[in-house]
Amino acid sequence: MNGGVESLGSVNPYLSSMRRKRPAALTVNDYVEGILRGDVTMLSRAVTLVESMLPEHQVIAQEVVERCLPHSGKSVRIGITGVPGAGKSTSIDAFGMHVLERCGGKLAVLAVDPSSERSKGSILGDKTRMERLSLHHDAFIRPSASSGSLGGVARKTRETIVLCEAAGYDKVFVETVGVGQSETAVYSMVDFFLLIQITGAGDELQGIKRGIMEMADGVVINKADGDNIDEARRSAVHLRNALHLFPMPASGIRPQVLTYSGFYDLGIKEVWDMIFDYIAKVKENGAFDERRNSQSRYWMHEAIDEQLRMRFMNAPGVAEKLKACEQLLLSGKMTSFAAAARMLEFYDGLKGNGNG
Amino acid sequence: MNGGVESLGSVNPYLSSMRRKRPAALTVNDYVEGILRGDVTMLSRAVTLVESMLPEHQVIAQEVVERCLPHSGKSVRIGITGVPGAGKSTSIDAFGMHVLERCGGKLAVLAVDPSSERSKGSILGDKTRMERLSLHHDAFIRPSASSGSLGGVARKTRETIVLCEAAGYDKVFVETVGVGQSETAVYSMVDFFLLIQITGAGDELQGIKRGIMEMADGVVINKADGDNIDEARRSAVHLRNALHLFPMPASGIRPQVLTYSGFYDLGIKEVWDMIFDYIAKVKENGAFDERRNSQSRYWMHEAIDEQLRMRFMNAPGVAEKLKACEQLLLSGKMTSFAAAARMLEFYDGLKGNGNG
Repeated sequence: MNGGVESLGSVNPYLSSMRRKRPAALTVNDYVEGILRGDVTMLSRAVTLVESMLPEHQVIAQEVVERCLPHSGKSVRIGITGVPGAGKSTSIDAFGMHVLERCGGKLAVLAVDPSSERSKGSILGDKTRMERLSLHHDAFIRPSASSGSLGGVARKTRETIVLCEAAGYDKVFVETVGVGQSETAVYSMVDFFLLIQITGAGDELQGIKRGIMEMADGVVINKADGDNIDEARRSAVHLRNALHLFPMPASGIRPQVLTYSGFYDLGIKEVWDMIFDYIAKVKENGAFDERRNSQSRYWMHEAIDEQLRMRFMNAPGVAEKLKACEQLLLSGKMTSFAAAARMLEFYDGLKGNGNG
Repeated sequence: MNGGVESLGSVNPYLSSMRRKRPAALTVNDYVEGILRGDVTMLSRAVTLVESMLPEHQVIAQEVVERCLPHSGKSVRIGITGVPGAGKSTSIDAFGMHVLERCGGKLAVLAVDPSSERSKGSILGDKTRMERLSLHHDAFIRPSASSGSLGGVARKTRETIVLCEAAGYDKVFVETVGVGQSETAVYSMVDFFLLIQITGAGDELQGIKRGIMEMADGVVINKADGDNIDEARRSAVHLRNALHLFPMPASGIRPQVLTYSGFYDLGIKEVWDMIFDYIAKVKENGAFDERRNSQSRYWMHEAIDEQLRMRFMNAPGVAEKLKACEQLLLSGKMTSFAAAARMLEFYDGLKGNGNG
């Protein structure tokens, strides 16, 4: 499009004046070179392109991501989840400062937060909650892409990871709220999945979704400070016993349970000893590469399935037909499989009519 | 087809003689009426049709299932899982005899065991392992359909449940081995999902797959007899503590942990008190109907997704193209999403050429 404006510029004064008002459009080369030399503004603008819904932005974004790909993959990716109120932002501030002081390098903090789950907990919404990290010149904090399906948001986050890694960020945190499907998405894009818990009423660690516990590579109990220390430790013991009943994970490393205080900066080193120790071991035993490969395959198949499903659901008339079939289904007039067969027949009919 | 043979019978002596050797083919009406009056032979033959891969059998089977549907749904469906060696067959024998003696009625015992998982544990392979039940005239024991994808086997089992219920079986057990994906399938077709455990080395309950614990509506520890009683009770305490850390299930009822001995018939009543109590409560609070409705929807969408995926995977050239894309993916030359986009473009090209 810009090319078109360019060539008409001298002929059409209206287009010409429009062009002058815009900042010079960046080429794929500009983005890639900027990112590779670690230019934060360029990185930010490229991430904005990745997040954009506009097809013309997506064309450039995809090329930038593809060109950055050979320079990516070298970071350690840590997923961090926990219910709202678990103190994720404060913890990430403490964790981030610790790893930057301890190892140097650069840290990117991203988030997966599909809009549908937005109301349940603010994700990186307020950078000021990461007081120290937001001022640190080696930290890049980027809130979640604002909208779209979980699959779409997950794709954008994974592409943003590629860009950050190409820009030299060798640690990536991906935050999510442990209330929906998004933690499965984050689990499937990181090397270590950390579950932040707090002690609740009695023994129960409240609000945690079924299944999350079994995804965790490590569990940490926050707010182990002041009067709360004993209860946090008791919860840790219970959790350790519980996790001991689960089978050994594919990594060959049993998840540990630690207590800490993000606010008072207590026990932070121990949490990261655990994580770094885990990463060293899985790099040694091959589980690290295996996990990344199976993640790549997973996302490819997820993307294909999502596309096939979306095309089906968006085909004209399918939504109405589906509602009708669901009625027959729930009133016991049709089996699930007969209903599915009827839906697919309907879909084939559409394609036969040239609508596919 | 049979109609065709019929009309040609007097003209073509070969076809005519073939026809005479076959037993008279049953009509849909024959099957349905037989099933509705509780004829076990008819039920068995209908299940064989459901399991058949032949399209002409499937046509009849689907009609029979559809006609039985209004007479189904009235049983209590119990899923039973556990690792090989947990004593599932002996337990099912004891459980089945208990519920038949306690409540009367009729019991169907089915299994989900996709062939790929077959070698890991024999499912109902040896009816003689259910010594008492296999001789009981109110029990109908049917091994798993012998082959096919998990989705296919699950469909056949769900349809078999419909037939059994229409034949007056008011209790249905569905057995599965807790080692693959099949327990998710069984979980999604029953009203109560029972996990059978045994005590292993030390604390750990070995062999159980991640995620199963969180699906269980109740956990029972088998072989709590003789020298093993104390260890079984200790395991139960640990499991209770562990389950207490999980969030409250949608049913509003926390899973209980009990010990029993299938072989020595100890504690069987208590297990069934727990299950019947659960069923009474969820029928009262609405969770029973809610679960069944969401299962129906789940299976419809699963069937649609599976079909869409299968058509894609079976399209000419897709398998080879997928392999090539996976190579590019794993060597870091392409993102998962770019690879997926390329695959879908390829698929669209096929359809454009009239292959869709």
